[in-house]
Amino acid sequence: MTGDFRFEILSRDGAARAGMITTPRGTVRTPAFMPVGTAGTVKAMHPEAVKAQGAEIVLANTYHLMLRPGAERIATLGGLHEFMNWPWPILTDSGGFQVMSLAKLRKLDENGVTFQSHIDGARHVLTPKRAMEIQDLLGSDIAMQFDECVRLPCAEAEARRAMLMSLRWAERSRAAFVAKPGRAVFGIVQGGAAEAMRIESAKALADMGFDGYALGGLAVGEPRTVMLAMIACTLPWLPPGKPRYLMGVGTPDDLLEAVRRGIDMFDCVLPTRAGRHGLAYTRAGRLNLRNARHAGDPAPVDPLSSSTAARTYSRAYLHHLVKSGEILGMMLLTEINLAYYQDFMEDMRRAIAAGCFDDFCDAAKMAWRSGETSGKRDE
Amino acid sequence: MTGDFRFEILSRDGAARAGMITTPRGTVRTPAFMPVGTAGTVKAMHPEAVKAQGAEIVLANTYHLMLRPGAERIATLGGLHEFMNWPWPILTDSGGFQVMSLAKLRKLDENGVTFQSHIDGARHVLTPKRAMEIQDLLGSDIAMQFDECVRLPCAEAEARRAMLMSLRWAERSRAAFVAKPGRAVFGIVQGGAAEAMRIESAKALADMGFDGYALGGLAVGEPRTVMLAMIACTLPWLPPGKPRYLMGVGTPDDLLEAVRRGIDMFDCVLPTRAGRHGLAYTRAGRLNLRNARHAGDPAPVDPLSSSTAARTYSRAYLHHLVKSGEILGMMLLTEINLAYYQDFMEDMRRAIAAGCFDDFCDAAKMAWRSGETSGKRDE
Repeated sequence: MTGDFRFEILSRDGAARAGMITTPRGTVRTPAFMPVGTAGTVKAMHPEAVKAQGAEIVLANTYHLMLRPGAERIATLGGLHEFMNWPWPILTDSGGFQVMSLAKLRKLDENGVTFQSHIDGARHVLTPKRAMEIQDLLGSDIAMQFDECVRLPCAEAEARRAMLMSLRWAERSRAAFVAKPGRAVFGIVQGGAAEAMRIESAKALADMGFDGYALGGLAVGEPRTVMLAMIACTLPWLPPGKPRYLMGVGTPDDLLEAVRRGIDMFDCVLPTRAGRHGLAYTRAGRLNLRNARHAGDPAPVDPLSSSTAARTYSRAYLHHLVKSGEILGMMLLTEINLAYYQDFMEDMRRAIAAGCFDDFCDAAKMAWRSGETSGKRDE
Repeated sequence: MTGDFRFEILSRDGAARAGMITTPRGTVRTPAFMPVGTAGTVKAMHPEAVKAQGAEIVLANTYHLMLRPGAERIATLGGLHEFMNWPWPILTDSGGFQVMSLAKLRKLDENGVTFQSHIDGARHVLTPKRAMEIQDLLGSDIAMQFDECVRLPCAEAEARRAMLMSLRWAERSRAAFVAKPGRAVFGIVQGGAAEAMRIESAKALADMGFDGYALGGLAVGEPRTVMLAMIACTLPWLPPGKPRYLMGVGTPDDLLEAVRRGIDMFDCVLPTRAGRHGLAYTRAGRLNLRNARHAGDPAPVDPLSSSTAARTYSRAYLHHLVKSGEILGMMLLTEINLAYYQDFMEDMRRAIAAGCFDDFCDAAKMAWRSGETSGKRDE
């Protein structure tokens, strides 16, 4: 594989952009939604089915994979693409967020983080250098800097300390990044819920010169309006020609509003996790298939979906599978949700190219409220 | 759908037979293995994938489906084929075995069985008439008589009482069977581990004139030699031109020995359940993917399998998925196991047609012992 990592903006509509990331492993049309393959699998999906739905890149996690099966093991087995049978682009998170959210007994200092595995309690160390080394061993196409992420709400002094630490770690991550043809490294904007800190972080990262820029530490407890305000204040300070990735977000409505403000990339566990818990995302809003009113409903989840599962199986059958704890229920609802997300990204890209993104937003929101593919909206 | 239920024997090799069952919903080549779709789903498999592997009929359970979602509900929704998106033949068990193995607080008398649901404790009654009615509501292509099944070992007097009860219930089931074009009803031979009782049961059922005959109450605790002896003593007393179904069996080796004695049909949870617990059935015997020795093994489960999953994913990856409790691990190992079972049935049919079944048996057993697709056999 040869070639550079490139990003081109193909059209704009207001602040929204439609573009294309080119990597030696394939192209990624933006705005892009990356299904989450935490432990080297998009849960309950065959990788070829993930691709067939339109996903062009998936996310995997440094934190999970370093603990099990181990980065060196995956490297020995030919790298993560080979390991998980996904030959297309992979973005890897650096572990900073998971250390905050999952690990036990964290000890953080200038050097990095010492923590205990949530799996077996074993002691591990992550530093900017090691996080980049692991992502190189995995063979990541887009590596993320190692950062410190705080939960919100958070005292401003604490958020500032973490933001400044993340900037110093950004420099060390940048220096430790193992540059290979076509591989990219992204910086991560931190700064809690304070506009000034977000801007300070964005400007400093832009000066370092990354291949792309992520917004981290959002959707971690703050009101949605705060998240949207942080996006809006940050983006003008990032290089306009580089991809912008909003980490860990979100609902379809979140995606819409973030794209409207200029975000190009997303990842979120929502469609996969919701699918394993009986929820379906559709053009007509969210359905809770556990709800007894679906028990006798012969209608499919969405007769116009691109997903065979959404068109084929009755709500009554999905209700039965969910109530019975059947794995097929999780498989079908994961498929339905990821297909909806991919179709939705495709629709957004088309609306941006056509210059009618605001109208598209209005129509999407109205359809979600209507609750109509055939019934009322749940929840 | 029109047409009769028919069974033709196309070739014989010793006592082994290769044939074809014809139903309005499709043909079933025998010897046939029926994947188990207890609650209206072959666990962790898309129905179209089950069919693509070569399955031509699946089994579903009266007991499970009457409790959830209910037979009347399935009928209202267009029947079980429509409900589970499996338009091909379905055989339904009558519930007798599950009442014995799963239900709580059973009370059995001449009329039938009163029991509590294992799901919610609700009280239910199954009688021969109701068991046949439920199977008609489901739209079963092959219905089973309602029977009483005892665990082995069992006092001979108790086994005899249950066998005679099952015969009286066979008559009532036969009378209550809702005959529709192309639908069949099978009797079930009982009689514990006593040859004389098995023969008595088989003769009485043959006199009643069923469309096929099952051997029930085997693989319920008795030594394998006893099971094979019961098969051998029973089959000569069944009408030679009707299909013979060994219920709930078994390992590949069990299937081989049962086919050698003249069995035509099987169902068993083993390939699906084992797949959900990290075990792979292959030409080279059984692999336990939990075993640490697979952690670094880049070899596939079986490079010559008809299953893409068996050829594509490394043992190391499957080990990782199993250790991580990932649903994809259950999906892939279920696929691998059911594909092996279907390939194995196809190989047996071909060997019978070619008149070399004994040689095929020797070769299959040798391959299982060898442990070679690439490594040693596990436990």
